[in-house]
Amino acid sequence: MDHLTLDVVVTRGALIESRHRVHAAVVDAKGNTIATAHDPATVTYWRSCAKPFQVMPLLESDGFDQVGWGDDHLALACGSHGGEPEHVALAQAMLATIGMEEGDLACGPHDPLAARGQKMLRESGQRPTRLHNNCSGKHAAMLAWAHTAGWPTVGYERAHHPVQEGCLAEVAKWSGVEAGAIGRAIDGCGVVVFALPLDAMANAYARLADRARRSHEVPSRIVHAMQTRPFLVGGSDRFDSAIIAATEGRVITKVGAEGVHSVAIVDEGIGIAIKVECGAQRAQFPAVIAVLQHYGALPRDLPPRLAEFSHRQLHNTRGEVVGDIRLPQK
Amino acid sequence: MDHLTLDVVVTRGALIESRHRVHAAVVDAKGNTIATAHDPATVTYWRSCAKPFQVMPLLESDGFDQVGWGDDHLALACGSHGGEPEHVALAQAMLATIGMEEGDLACGPHDPLAARGQKMLRESGQRPTRLHNNCSGKHAAMLAWAHTAGWPTVGYERAHHPVQEGCLAEVAKWSGVEAGAIGRAIDGCGVVVFALPLDAMANAYARLADRARRSHEVPSRIVHAMQTRPFLVGGSDRFDSAIIAATEGRVITKVGAEGVHSVAIVDEGIGIAIKVECGAQRAQFPAVIAVLQHYGALPRDLPPRLAEFSHRQLHNTRGEVVGDIRLPQK
Repeated sequence: MDHLTLDVVVTRGALIESRHRVHAAVVDAKGNTIATAHDPATVTYWRSCAKPFQVMPLLESDGFDQVGWGDDHLALACGSHGGEPEHVALAQAMLATIGMEEGDLACGPHDPLAARGQKMLRESGQRPTRLHNNCSGKHAAMLAWAHTAGWPTVGYERAHHPVQEGCLAEVAKWSGVEAGAIGRAIDGCGVVVFALPLDAMANAYARLADRARRSHEVPSRIVHAMQTRPFLVGGSDRFDSAIIAATEGRVITKVGAEGVHSVAIVDEGIGIAIKVECGAQRAQFPAVIAVLQHYGALPRDLPPRLAEFSHRQLHNTRGEVVGDIRLPQK
Repeated sequence: MDHLTLDVVVTRGALIESRHRVHAAVVDAKGNTIATAHDPATVTYWRSCAKPFQVMPLLESDGFDQVGWGDDHLALACGSHGGEPEHVALAQAMLATIGMEEGDLACGPHDPLAARGQKMLRESGQRPTRLHNNCSGKHAAMLAWAHTAGWPTVGYERAHHPVQEGCLAEVAKWSGVEAGAIGRAIDGCGVVVFALPLDAMANAYARLADRARRSHEVPSRIVHAMQTRPFLVGGSDRFDSAIIAATEGRVITKVGAEGVHSVAIVDEGIGIAIKVECGAQRAQFPAVIAVLQHYGALPRDLPPRLAEFSHRQLHNTRGEVVGDIRLPQK
C-alpha cells in the first residue's frame, strides 16, 4: 500500500500562506485499494463525477440507440461542459431529437464555465440559459431515458422518479455500495447527488476502465466517447479536456464540484478518487496531476498546457507574480 | 487555557460535504494567550488586518493633522472598503488634499467588493479604477506620509522605501515580533505584506484595544474612527461593518484575504486572530462570530444581519436550498 502526499500549498513570496488537505484512494481492477492519501474512506458527494454512470441506464435500455445519438451526444452527457456555442448547440439538438426544448430541462442557468463560453455569451448580449448549465447534456440524456421508457418527463429530477432510482441502482452496482447505504441530496443542477466513500468512487472508475479494456459494450462506448471527444467532456480551457487530450485518451478524468475528482487509467484498470477537504477547486488539479505522475500516466516534465494546471502562478491587482498554487517542492 | 473548536462545515442535505480547519489565538492585554484553536503559532500573512498599524506612522508623525484629515479619512485608511461611490469619492478627496490623483496610487484596479458597489459601477457603464481597490484609503494615507515627510512619493510601495520600513517597524512594535523575524512578501495591492504567528497578530490587537481604553492618543483615534464609521471600514454588505455596527463599536474586526481575520474586544483588551487553513473566506465569518459568542461579545441569538454571516444557506442553480455553511451543531 502506497501512502501518497497530495496536499497542495498556496505560497506568497518565500512562505506558505494557505494549505489544502487532499484525501485520495487508488483502487485496482480487482477492487483492492493500492494507495491512499489521508482518509481513503472519507464520505462525500460524487457530484459530476457520477455522470458516466448516470447515462448508463439509457444505453442499457437501448433508448440511446432508439433516439439515434452517437459519440458526441454521449461525451456531452458524461461531461461538465464549458457552455461554449458547440456545447449549447449540441444540448439543444439532443433535446430536439426527443421533441423537447430548453424549458424541459430541470437544471437552472449559470454562466458558462469556460472563459471562451463566457466571452462569446457576453459578446452576444444574451443571458445564460439552462443549455449553458454544464450539466445540460446529462439532463438531456435523463429526459431521453424518461421519454423512451414511456415515463412522465416532468419531474425526472426527483428522487422517486424511475430515472433517479435507476441512476442510484447503477451507482450502487459500480461502486459496490448498497443502494440503501448511499446518502442522497440535491445537486447543483437539481438532480439527485450520491454520497460515497472515496474508495468506492475509485472502485467504480477502476471497474469502468477494466470493463472497457475487456470490451464490455456499454463501458466501452462510454470510455471511447470520452477518450475521443475531450472538448465535449469539458471545453477549450477545461482541465479534463487537457488531460484526456494530452494522454490521447489513456487517462480519463472527471471533475466534480467541491473538490472531488475521479480518474481512470484505462489500460491499467486503475481508478482514482480525490477530495480536497475544504472543497477548493484550485487545489484539485495539481493533486490529480501529481497522482497521475506517480503512476507514470503523465511525465514529470509536463507539457505547458498541463504545467499551468499543476503549478499556477498567482498575480496581484498590479499584475505582479506574488505566489503560486502547487504541491510542496520535495 | 481554553481550547476552542472553530472549524466550519459545508453541508448538503444531511451530510457534511466539505470541512474548513480554523486556527486561532486569543490574547489578553497582558500578552497572555488565553485560548487557542488548532495551532495558535501558525505563521501566515496578516494581509489587510495590518491596516490600523500601517496608518499609525502618519498619525505619529503629525502628517495626518498637517493635511487636515479627520475620522472619516482615518476609518477609510484602516478599512477594506466596498468600492461604493462614497468610498471612491473619499479616497479621491484624500488624494486631492495632497495634490495627487488616482494615477499616483500603486494599487491596481479590481471590481468593488460590495454588491452595491458592483451594481452602481455596472450601471454607470464605467470600469473599476484604482480608487475602487479596497485598499485605496490605505494607499492614500501612505502617499500622505511620504508627501508630508518630504520623501519621494514614487515607489512608496517598495520594501526599501521609508514608508514601508516605517510600517514594518510599527508592526514589529505592536506584535512583539522583531522586525528581522517578520517575513515579507507582496500584498494583493502591491505594498509589503507581513508574515506573523497568529498569537502575535492577536497580541497587537489586544494592545491596540488596551491602549485605546487607556486613552493613549494614536490608538484611541484609530479605534474611535473604526468604532464610529463602520461603513467606511467596509461597506453596506460587508462583514466588519455589520459586526462593528451590531456591537456599537464594542468589537472591531478587520478582514484579511486568504482567511485571516483580526478582532479586538475593546473594553476587555482582548485580541483575537484566526486563519482558515485553506484560505476560504466562506469559513472565516462563522468562525469569528463563534469566538465572539464564546466571549459574550455577541449574543447566542444573533440579529438577522449577523445570522446570515454565521449560518449561510447554499442555493443551487434552481434556487433550491441544498445545504449550509456553519459551525457543526453541538
